[in-house]
Amino acid sequence: MLKHQNNITLKEVAKLAGVSPSAVSRTFTEGASVSSKTRKRVQDAARELNYLPNFLASSLITKRTKLIALISDNYSNPIFLEVFDLFTKTLQERGFRPLLYNYSHNADIDDTISMLRQYNVDAVIVASSVITETFVKRLQQMDCPIVHAFSHHDNDSDVNSVSADNVQGGRLAAKALLAKKYRDILFLGGPEHASSTISRLKGFTEILQANNVSLKYTAFCQHYSYDSGKTSMQEFLQTHSVNDIDAVFCGDDLICMGAIDAVTQHGYNVPDDIGFIGFNDINIGQWGKFKLTTIHQPIREITLNAVDIILSSLEQPTQPITQTRLFPCRLITRDTL
Amino acid sequence: MLKHQNNITLKEVAKLAGVSPSAVSRTFTEGASVSSKTRKRVQDAARELNYLPNFLASSLITKRTKLIALISDNYSNPIFLEVFDLFTKTLQERGFRPLLYNYSHNADIDDTISMLRQYNVDAVIVASSVITETFVKRLQQMDCPIVHAFSHHDNDSDVNSVSADNVQGGRLAAKALLAKKYRDILFLGGPEHASSTISRLKGFTEILQANNVSLKYTAFCQHYSYDSGKTSMQEFLQTHSVNDIDAVFCGDDLICMGAIDAVTQHGYNVPDDIGFIGFNDINIGQWGKFKLTTIHQPIREITLNAVDIILSSLEQPTQPITQTRLFPCRLITRDTL
Repeated sequence: MLKHQNNITLKEVAKLAGVSPSAVSRTFTEGASVSSKTRKRVQDAARELNYLPNFLASSLITKRTKLIALISDNYSNPIFLEVFDLFTKTLQERGFRPLLYNYSHNADIDDTISMLRQYNVDAVIVASSVITETFVKRLQQMDCPIVHAFSHHDNDSDVNSVSADNVQGGRLAAKALLAKKYRDILFLGGPEHASSTISRLKGFTEILQANNVSLKYTAFCQHYSYDSGKTSMQEFLQTHSVNDIDAVFCGDDLICMGAIDAVTQHGYNVPDDIGFIGFNDINIGQWGKFKLTTIHQPIREITLNAVDIILSSLEQPTQPITQTRLFPCRLITRDTL
Repeated sequence: MLKHQNNITLKEVAKLAGVSPSAVSRTFTEGASVSSKTRKRVQDAARELNYLPNFLASSLITKRTKLIALISDNYSNPIFLEVFDLFTKTLQERGFRPLLYNYSHNADIDDTISMLRQYNVDAVIVASSVITETFVKRLQQMDCPIVHAFSHHDNDSDVNSVSADNVQGGRLAAKALLAKKYRDILFLGGPEHASSTISRLKGFTEILQANNVSLKYTAFCQHYSYDSGKTSMQEFLQTHSVNDIDAVFCGDDLICMGAIDAVTQHGYNVPDDIGFIGFNDINIGQWGKFKLTTIHQPIREITLNAVDIILSSLEQPTQPITQTRLFPCRLITRDTL
């Protein structure tokens, strides 16, 4: 409510410090000029009076609100709890304020841009492989640092991106299946047009082809969720026999768990009848019930690097070099393959 | 970055509308007086110029930032994804801005209060049964509407609270166990001092005692997490035989899943050797691998009511009546009991 604690004003701090109100203001304004002697007197007085600079007032001077928006469209996948945890923790430590923007229920880009502009955010992190590069390019009208996390753009793109190397992750999955002599394979991907789905499938088929194995079936799920995986697998089983395939590469762990439950309900055994490999390496996959073989996605590196690009851009606004950072995946071998 | 889209200023809107800049300002200030005719002319001009009021500038007039903080200390329990989803969606629809504050890595209350004050939040929702009433009372120094969600305070408390009726939930669990003739029972609760743990245990023992059954063992987990549940159950099994108990009431579904995996690894069968009942009714519990019998916690009602109390308080700041809202739990019968 824009009150200062104890109603201490800038003038009172100035009086106690024996300096001008302007000197107090400059002490609490990033980058403003003030002598170290004055700064110390102001800081001592502020501490004594329990005075804290008001971000809102200083925003009008610095043209910065210290608000960083995180746009997310997935509130069903537990990996986003880890993303939210790291995102909020890292920003808080650096003195920024994390604003969560929910895009899952509001598909209108104009509304989103209007709202983010009204929010006066300093920067935006889009955390989704389902949200398109086109969408992110339109966000760039906002003229503030933007990074697209969990989605990879080409080096010639003018959008910053940080993601797992999903092509390499797809290759790892193919190698793991071929090493175990699986040949009749279904790719059960996430949303068909998600960049993550496209890249994972690309790396996957690349290795199969290099080994003269053709991908037998391809199917996609509407969402990165357990229910989508289960439904898509059930649909596949309506038109195919489980004998048509001997393994499934799922574009996501939740999809994989749903698909495993679908084949288990049909009376089949994993991995004896069908092998499964997922993607992400969520905690649940480690549990005794699942012991999921999967491809680990480096969530932590992606989130921290997205924050790093944003904060570096804010610190050095004159360096608008577009960055593309890719992090390798790795195979986690457990019991489903 | 505090820019207006297209750099349209309030003065340009005023000029096109043929009104004073002050009339434009009043049109976009909640509660300010302006004739309906003037309002319409300003709105038409604003639409034509693609002008949006700047929250930051209007904050200085209204003394409101429209920022609502959500304090959370649990980023490992999937129920919080649902909480974050509902929280952000509801606030956005009402024109507020959801700020996520991560308390899990920062246990210092003075730092928290300082930071929230600097954030200039209009209101605070604390979403945790582990964070204490004492902590929330100290937050009240901030002199803004505060609600404690997922924790129940007595009617004579001066802290707003919204939660599940955990005592009634504990009673339901006891009735379910007694109906299935379980008698040698372990209560494996969440953190010992969490209000949720205390209330669930209270309702649980109340019904056992009324039926002349005494609770055989009580143990607590350090966190509401799978790992804590598994570790605590393993520790119990080190000093007790599994024959000492025939059922476990777990204070949380994740704890329950960890405990089930612990007894399964010891070679015991659920529910034939030991029955389990959880709390919360998270999605994962519905999956084929678990089919967890549990007590449903009304997450949706709790979250929406916490937001409702906050927004009502902001709309009617003269009515500082402390509210306590409790929502009943219900039994979900599946396969673990």
